[in-house]
Amino acid sequence: MKEFDTICAIATPIGEGGVAIIRISGEKALEIASEIFVPKNDYDIKNMKTYTMKYGNIVNFKTREIIDEVILTYMKAPRSYTGENVVEINCHGGIVSTNSVLDQAIQAGARLSEPGEFTKRAFLNGRIDLSQAEAVMDIITAKTELAMKSAMLQSNGALSKEIVELRKNLLNTLALIEYAVDFTEDDEDIVDDNLIMQIKNGIDKTIVKIKNLLASADEGKIIREGLSIVIVGKPNVGKSSLLNALLKENRAIVTDVPGTTRDIIEEYLNVDGIPIRIIDTAGIRDTEDIVEKIGVERSKEKIEEADLVILMIDVSREIDIEDKIIIEKIKNRKHIVLANKIDLDRKISEENINELNNIINISAKSGIGIDDLKKKIKDLFFNGEIKSESLLISNTRHKQALYKSLENCDMALNKVNADEYLDLISIYITAAMKALGEITGDELEEDLLNKIFSEFCVGK
Amino acid sequence: MKEFDTICAIATPIGEGGVAIIRISGEKALEIASEIFVPKNDYDIKNMKTYTMKYGNIVNFKTREIIDEVILTYMKAPRSYTGENVVEINCHGGIVSTNSVLDQAIQAGARLSEPGEFTKRAFLNGRIDLSQAEAVMDIITAKTELAMKSAMLQSNGALSKEIVELRKNLLNTLALIEYAVDFTEDDEDIVDDNLIMQIKNGIDKTIVKIKNLLASADEGKIIREGLSIVIVGKPNVGKSSLLNALLKENRAIVTDVPGTTRDIIEEYLNVDGIPIRIIDTAGIRDTEDIVEKIGVERSKEKIEEADLVILMIDVSREIDIEDKIIIEKIKNRKHIVLANKIDLDRKISEENINELNNIINISAKSGIGIDDLKKKIKDLFFNGEIKSESLLISNTRHKQALYKSLENCDMALNKVNADEYLDLISIYITAAMKALGEITGDELEEDLLNKIFSEFCVGK
Repeated sequence: MKEFDTICAIATPIGEGGVAIIRISGEKALEIASEIFVPKNDYDIKNMKTYTMKYGNIVNFKTREIIDEVILTYMKAPRSYTGENVVEINCHGGIVSTNSVLDQAIQAGARLSEPGEFTKRAFLNGRIDLSQAEAVMDIITAKTELAMKSAMLQSNGALSKEIVELRKNLLNTLALIEYAVDFTEDDEDIVDDNLIMQIKNGIDKTIVKIKNLLASADEGKIIREGLSIVIVGKPNVGKSSLLNALLKENRAIVTDVPGTTRDIIEEYLNVDGIPIRIIDTAGIRDTEDIVEKIGVERSKEKIEEADLVILMIDVSREIDIEDKIIIEKIKNRKHIVLANKIDLDRKISEENINELNNIINISAKSGIGIDDLKKKIKDLFFNGEIKSESLLISNTRHKQALYKSLENCDMALNKVNADEYLDLISIYITAAMKALGEITGDELEEDLLNKIFSEFCVGK
Repeated sequence: MKEFDTICAIATPIGEGGVAIIRISGEKALEIASEIFVPKNDYDIKNMKTYTMKYGNIVNFKTREIIDEVILTYMKAPRSYTGENVVEINCHGGIVSTNSVLDQAIQAGARLSEPGEFTKRAFLNGRIDLSQAEAVMDIITAKTELAMKSAMLQSNGALSKEIVELRKNLLNTLALIEYAVDFTEDDEDIVDDNLIMQIKNGIDKTIVKIKNLLASADEGKIIREGLSIVIVGKPNVGKSSLLNALLKENRAIVTDVPGTTRDIIEEYLNVDGIPIRIIDTAGIRDTEDIVEKIGVERSKEKIEEADLVILMIDVSREIDIEDKIIIEKIKNRKHIVLANKIDLDRKISEENINELNNIINISAKSGIGIDDLKKKIKDLFFNGEIKSESLLISNTRHKQALYKSLENCDMALNKVNADEYLDLISIYITAAMKALGEITGDELEEDLLNKIFSEFCVGK
């Protein structure tokens, strides 16, 4: 275990609640805690056993005034979250109480932690690898149970296992090349065909596996970050009714997300575990004077950014020039057309919308067709079936590293097929291994590492 | 201990953080937890020792799928927060993870707790009295360290001790009356003067003590709920500069309080531990067309509600009709006058403001006089000195109960002095005792009890 100073932070969400936790991690955790904790019965907590708790008061480091009544827990290194000695102080969950206890821990010698520093230590102390560390943040920010499940798989090392396996394959291939190189040195230009075949097979196998992993990346990203859907359509076409129908059963737990702009309505849905961000462009139009023109202009931007565009049309009204502009805009994007108000007289003919796909008849008001819409979304992004049990590549950083590794494997295979020098091939394979190592953190520059953890919340 | 079902709730603030706690309390806490917790090493948690922790996974009650990686702690009755068996599950602090773990606890047989139900049980199980239970909520919502300290004193039983003492005094007095009544029955109409004197003294002593407690009620209320100050004055008189000068050093930790209206600017200050809510009426004026008239109208309302009015005047401008209206309005309220811009030529004479008190010369821009203002506030509400060590009556409910008790003691004393029947006196003393019992909860109707706890947060 490396040598670090002792850090502290509020580990629970900020706000008012029954209980909050101040976490202290480092070699001196218990020593620092003993300076500000007075147990109810006369006991020296420096003798505390691991995985036990004590009841007492946090007192002012200098004046010894009682600050809060707490429960103190101790987890001795290496069996703790960070792999270091960890003390957690459960105090009253108020803003003043929590900050006062934190303040005393700092007075007694702990340093306020940086964002993600506890998890970073778990990584640096070798308790978890980098992909597991990243999964911790995904667990905390998960917007649906499916996203949570996917993050838990990664946290438990499912991705790490695959990466270790891939790197082992490549290392074996490197050993074969080494052997072949030695062989050619001894006996000039003859290399055993069988050996070359084994090298080829080794690279091939790795390529297939990386491609398999990458095949899940689109689904993984959607499950982790959510699917962004923009609803377009003219005023009074039924967009609010649609939104209400969808929200009725599927409103996501997470609705209040920072960054939501004021003039665009955004809502979060949870459709069978897929977190969906619905952007309703209705809000745009209402605030504008020249409704038609600017409405279309602004919708365009949103259409570009969205994963899926839902066009709503009112089948009881004829197609006009504005509809046609939108149709032109979306026909080359992933889209669904909702033909609304099917209970009224139909004035739109098939040929009006024959350039579009995925047309669903609905009645947003009565709820008819809503299930078809949800099924269609799953069809478009998950081939109809969400594989909740399998490992998904959900992190863009991992996806990029896998692509880098794949490119190098491809290059290596080309060189082998072109009968190039084996020394040259080993360079590509080494690069492919290095790229994979970035995922688990075995190979990563320190500044990149710092960047990854700086995106964590403080206290984790 | 009474028989209750087993309840559960999220005990930490809602939001995203490193850790969250699900609390389970009741006879079956460990049994229910064992249904959804799978320890890492093979161990039956039903054999867990009190004040110990276990590492493992929370799994789905039915499918046994892993939901989250957790630390489970156990506190056996009666040495726990509620006085019952308590299990706390420390899971990842995400919204989905926290709710998923809570959901499994419910699936396994726990009932979702009502607001304040954990603390209510601590009270009903006799671990704390009602004034201590109420102090828990005051600790959580404390806006300054002074408020926190005052709540901690109450939580540790300082008020309870006083009340028990007062009730004991009155009970002794009742016993004396009983004895005197027996005596008169034996020997007709002669009552020992000495006995009457003792009864008088007993009541007298109680009255003095209750009055002492009530003397702290105004200060206590301010420390608990904060002092509300409204700043009035014409546009450009320097209100924003004043607010900035005050906020620079004293901004309270708690700034984002729900209920803040949109057209009135409110800020929270922490002046030597006094939580101060500053209402700046500047915001009102800006939104109105007929500035002067309506500004004054709306300020009037705020002036009525505030504990203190601060009038700001610009000494470099002459007093006009609007100033005079405001002066008329506030002269009978607790007020401070800030004569701003003292560095400019003075155009206001003393007689313009001779109906007002507490005039302080300041220069809001340069910060001159700000300390005088703070000192004046402390003078007006705390006689210059905040007694942070002494018990304060901070809760309006307690204040009312003390008044009720005082009234009955006064009546009893009057009756004794008027030589009325001792039986009649004992009725008043009993009523005085009952009123005191409402504070500790020894005497309280169940619906009142429910009302008190319903104002708690869920999970406490």
